Amino acid sequence: MIFTSDNAFGVSPEILDALARVNGGGVSSYGADDTTKGLTQKFSDLFEREVAVFPVATGTAANALALATLTPPYGAILCHDVAHVNVDECGAPEMFTGGAKLIGIGGAGGKIDPDRFFARLQGFRAGDVHSVQPRSLTITQSNEDGGVYSLDELTRLTAIAREFKLAVHMDGARFANALVALGCSPAEMTWKSGVDVLSFGATKNGAMAAEAVVFFDPAMARDFEFRRKRAGHLFSKMRFLSAQLEAYLADDLWLRNARHANAMATRLGDGLSVIDGIVMASAIEANEVFVRLPVAVFKRLLASEAKFHPWPNVADAAEGHKHQTIRLVTSFATTADDVAGFLELVNG
Amino acid sequence: MIFTSDNAFGVSPEILDALARVNGGGVSSYGADDTTKGLTQKFSDLFEREVAVFPVATGTAANALALATLTPPYGAILCHDVAHVNVDECGAPEMFTGGAKLIGIGGAGGKIDPDRFFARLQGFRAGDVHSVQPRSLTITQSNEDGGVYSLDELTRLTAIAREFKLAVHMDGARFANALVALGCSPAEMTWKSGVDVLSFGATKNGAMAAEAVVFFDPAMARDFEFRRKRAGHLFSKMRFLSAQLEAYLADDLWLRNARHANAMATRLGDGLSVIDGIVMASAIEANEVFVRLPVAVFKRLLASEAKFHPWPNVADAAEGHKHQTIRLVTSFATTADDVAGFLELVNG
Amino acid sequence: MIFTSDNAFGVSPEILDALARVNGGGVSSYGADDTTKGLTQKFSDLFEREVAVFPVATGTAANALALATLTPPYGAILCHDVAHVNVDECGAPEMFTGGAKLIGIGGAGGKIDPDRFFARLQGFRAGDVHSVQPRSLTITQSNEDGGVYSLDELTRLTAIAREFKLAVHMDGARFANALVALGCSPAEMTWKSGVDVLSFGATKNGAMAAEAVVFFDPAMARDFEFRRKRAGHLFSKMRFLSAQLEAYLADDLWLRNARHANAMATRLGDGLSVIDGIVMASAIEANEVFVRLPVAVFKRLLASEAKFHPWPNVADAAEGHKHQTIRLVTSFATTADDVAGFLELVNG
Amino acid sequence: MIFTSDNAFGVSPEILDALARVNGGGVSSYGADDTTKGLTQKFSDLFEREVAVFPVATGTAANALALATLTPPYGAILCHDVAHVNVDECGAPEMFTGGAKLIGIGGAGGKIDPDRFFARLQGFRAGDVHSVQPRSLTITQSNEDGGVYSLDELTRLTAIAREFKLAVHMDGARFANALVALGCSPAEMTWKSGVDVLSFGATKNGAMAAEAVVFFDPAMARDFEFRRKRAGHLFSKMRFLSAQLEAYLADDLWLRNARHANAMATRLGDGLSVIDGIVMASAIEANEVFVRLPVAVFKRLLASEAKFHPWPNVADAAEGHKHQTIRLVTSFATTADDVAGFLELVNG
Repeated sequence: MIFTSDNAFGVSPEILDALARVNGGGVSSYGADDTTKGLTQKFSDLFEREVAVFPVATGTAANALALATLTPPYGAILCHDVAHVNVDECGAPEMFTGGAKLIGIGGAGGKIDPDRFFARLQGFRAGDVHSVQPRSLTITQSNEDGGVYSLDELTRLTAIAREFKLAVHMDGARFANALVALGCSPAEMTWKSGVDVLSFGATKNGAMAAEAVVFFDPAMARDFEFRRKRAGHLFSKMRFLSAQLEAYLADDLWLRNARHANAMATRLGDGLSVIDGIVMASAIEANEVFVRLPVAVFKRLLASEAKFHPWPNVADAAEGHKHQTIRLVTSFATTADDVAGFLELVNG
Repeated sequence: MIFTSDNAFGVSPEILDALARVNGGGVSSYGADDTTKGLTQKFSDLFEREVAVFPVATGTAANALALATLTPPYGAILCHDVAHVNVDECGAPEMFTGGAKLIGIGGAGGKIDPDRFFARLQGFRAGDVHSVQPRSLTITQSNEDGGVYSLDELTRLTAIAREFKLAVHMDGARFANALVALGCSPAEMTWKSGVDVLSFGATKNGAMAAEAVVFFDPAMARDFEFRRKRAGHLFSKMRFLSAQLEAYLADDLWLRNARHANAMATRLGDGLSVIDGIVMASAIEANEVFVRLPVAVFKRLLASEAKFHPWPNVADAAEGHKHQTIRLVTSFATTADDVAGFLELVNG
Repeated sequence: MIFTSDNAFGVSPEILDALARVNGGGVSSYGADDTTKGLTQKFSDLFEREVAVFPVATGTAANALALATLTPPYGAILCHDVAHVNVDECGAPEMFTGGAKLIGIGGAGGKIDPDRFFARLQGFRAGDVHSVQPRSLTITQSNEDGGVYSLDELTRLTAIAREFKLAVHMDGARFANALVALGCSPAEMTWKSGVDVLSFGATKNGAMAAEAVVFFDPAMARDFEFRRKRAGHLFSKMRFLSAQLEAYLADDLWLRNARHANAMATRLGDGLSVIDGIVMASAIEANEVFVRLPVAVFKRLLASEAKFHPWPNVADAAEGHKHQTIRLVTSFATTADDVAGFLELVNG
Repeated sequence: MIFTSDNAFGVSPEILDALARVNGGGVSSYGADDTTKGLTQKFSDLFEREVAVFPVATGTAANALALATLTPPYGAILCHDVAHVNVDECGAPEMFTGGAKLIGIGGAGGKIDPDRFFARLQGFRAGDVHSVQPRSLTITQSNEDGGVYSLDELTRLTAIAREFKLAVHMDGARFANALVALGCSPAEMTWKSGVDVLSFGATKNGAMAAEAVVFFDPAMARDFEFRRKRAGHLFSKMRFLSAQLEAYLADDLWLRNARHANAMATRLGDGLSVIDGIVMASAIEANEVFVRLPVAVFKRLLASEAKFHPWPNVADAAEGHKHQTIRLVTSFATTADDVAGFLELVNG
């Protein structure tokens, strides 16, 4: 019963098989192989537009490299207060940009509040040399609090970004989970909603270690390859990254995995919400469940075989710590038995 | 008939199998898994000393992260003129150190000349604020010209480094090939010869994408983990990196692979050296063959199915371009048939 | 009637004279001159302790260089939300540290709230590689909102910093103004209150362009000189920086200048506070006056010959913009006539 | 008898006077003052072209900021082996660019050899992600060995740079000395010879601490001001920098100072070259004299009141150290008596 993170699970069999399939000698290195070259067409088809696509192995690399192509050293990157790039990457965007500044914006449910975003941009002194210059916005979809921006919400934020000449990046570590939640097309959730560059995550949803940085305007990718190489993120045996992405997209594996993960989260949430004393901390929108447990239940679970992370929640403190919030993440590999077992534990 | 690079080959079956073996859910992320934890003991046994070991996916990452822990931004890294870190990593050491300077030293056969190294260090103005301060030496073993430093050669360089208070890094992208060439122990070729930190390469010798940064004094690794994370080189599903390294060491796979690659290079060299008109550019010490072909032969091979890289060689120019040097790299997967086939092609 | 900033004023005659006095040929460059060497004893006497002292020309350089010696690239610098280093230096600390992160803490009157500071530090995950690591605290004295920390307030913050192993920097761009406001000794306001490194400002208080970075533990300054040189902040004709600092300290010029500036601020505040409709935004503690003017008065002043900056104040918005807050800064060169003239303008 | 460096001398009286002249209150800060604004026209007139001009206080800042606007982090800066930016700025260009690489090119007399420059550029693998990408050339005029490039020599280098799409920077720390040596116009020695950006030095030639970064295409200066601010090189009391430059240009002070310095060097050289046993190490082209003294004479001078620097010279070693080369630098303030006195000492 593992609910700590979707990265605590392994690899989809189809993806492991793909690694074996591309094995063998005599293949060009550093991305000059056919598997890698083929990704451009596959991602262009997927996004209904000619894109430039670059495989990397980690989400932090994808985000930091993408943001570094969009933001000069004297620039500012606007993001949610709790964005992964802001609090969980040990300063990777700062390193890759050469010292740009991340500016956190608040907002409920892990979503950047558009009014606060607008106000913050207005507060900047455009062209004033004393201040870093806002140059990019990064939006996490689905986000760190389990929320999914609607297309309208995305468009509202990106329209403001456009007004202030900011480029827009989407951190899609859980892109598939958000996409199936919204039921829209990849194009709709990205460039049609104003996104310029996407970190297209696969690792959390069944790949071994594979993400794709997707530029919807290939011209913006101009110096990306130099930045990737100099960051040590160009793989010599690149086909093993690319094969993961290829298998991930094939036969809608990525969508099937994400649908399953989301369904397990919903099932978990449904089960929890009817248990006496349990308070749902937020609506379940993708594959994460945030739930406030009575402290006695929390302690019991901690001592059980179930694995999960406690989560900070000001509501718990405000109420005098009668409840403790926890985060439960489901994955492509979470089973209905895992869910049932966990519910049993909670029920005592 | 692929001789372009050892990274043009695939993955040893034992290593692919290991990926499948560690697959499955419920494993701690980011290196807290048992496979990763077990590496410390395995590498400590291997090197006959308590070490700190950190898996990363690329050689550039291993080198740049290691050098960044040894060298402040105002420091200088001494290396061979043609060192991979100096000419083939697009400035990765400069990025990771925050702008340290690489100082190339010449020397025949890809080996740093100890006298020139000593003279260069004497030329530095220690403590003079106008000059970067030499802080580290990096030695490639086996090196970019196919040469292997003897233990005496290593010790001579590291003794000089010690005298000037430089830390010593070894770029061991082809560590196994050098080790079996010398027939010494891993300890002898590293810390017993004065090496502080090693980039232990596995990718070129049968892994998919796995290197280990090994600190022979764990105290020197103090901030390594923060640097790795912020460079996007901490894998969430770390066990898939670690499993490659585990399988690489198990049952001496790494040594068997390297012995095979070296033997194929020797066989290739032996065959070439007796062909009329062919000039060996250097002795064959590990798994690389540098050979000067009459230009007609070179052109014929270029048009053949054989794959290899032409290589710059001042001797060719000096002689009026009657010969063209090429580099041939053998790997764990190079076959005797590949060698025989290539020799046939050369023979016409 | 200039109240925009203390840096809008010129240079004390004693300091201009000093420049002429050290002119002449044959003086060692880059700080090997006698004037510069003499500063160590002068600052050691001033601070009642052996210090290391380094002249630089700007406050931004002093702050960014000091913070870079205290904070690794993966570190965090804690500061007030509105600290100059955080909002007015275009990312200088980020540049000089190689991408460390500034973490703003709130607090009334420009003072870091100790409880929020403590809570923020507790919130950090010490040793967790996903998070930047808090390594330094910077305190502005007197601060950006015109406030002056009492010795008790300083000690409370630095004690918390010590508990979490943070080094402490003081941005003393207006050090003299704070010192004469508190009436304590330089030692008391710095190392006796837990400060490790000081940006000792002179430029705003009568120098041309001169600040001193003062390390109370000279061992902490180990690599400062390399950082200063490589940032272009080592002057070849250093004596002209040092002579400014020497003259600034001689005959208590610095204290006299600061006392005058503070007295003018008090006089201005006293005059304003008795005018009908005027609301003082904060108590006057050093040489800055923050005052909320009825909008009609504000507009009248804008059109006058008086120069000053409007200042953001949430209270104005909360109240429906009936008042507009402005900042008035007095200097060593502000005259009683300037003050009287301004009061007349306000009175209409 | 000071011949160590032109920066060992003080400030021209006209420049000290200018500081006093611009003193006084109520002047806009950070370059919004009239003196600073007036520089644009003055430098545009001087260079017969509309330029963008930015004062900074040190040559290292001027060079590193200029190069950082021309060179991305993955770029290479080509320069002479012994260029000040390469060996005497403790890695400033590396810091300001975010880790670009300096590539030294040899050449006699401190001048980049055009054939080697061309060959080096041809050797780069344009667009190959494994290699840093050459983006800028920096030429020192007059150079570190006392040489002055002719206009033809400049044009030859910049034409090659143009062919490979490199931007061209001139390090003009001794710009005036070179200009009067050539007897050409400032336009001819810069943009008419293919220079894009100039570090226009004044400090060595009579200013206190003032250099101007001059962009001959103002569009290239786009982000310069942000870089200057974030490096701590924007002065609040900017007029005191600008006034130095204004006075430096007024009434041809800069040219008079440089002519005097060069004349003193010539006089010194003329005197030395006729002394028995003395060997001139190079022709005297501007204000530096490199001379090989018999070791006995060198030792006698070392013990005298004359101040100068010994200088490395392979010729001395080749000959078995019978001579020791020294560098003698003359300045605007060097007197005929200084020269005569030195010649007397040499004559014994």
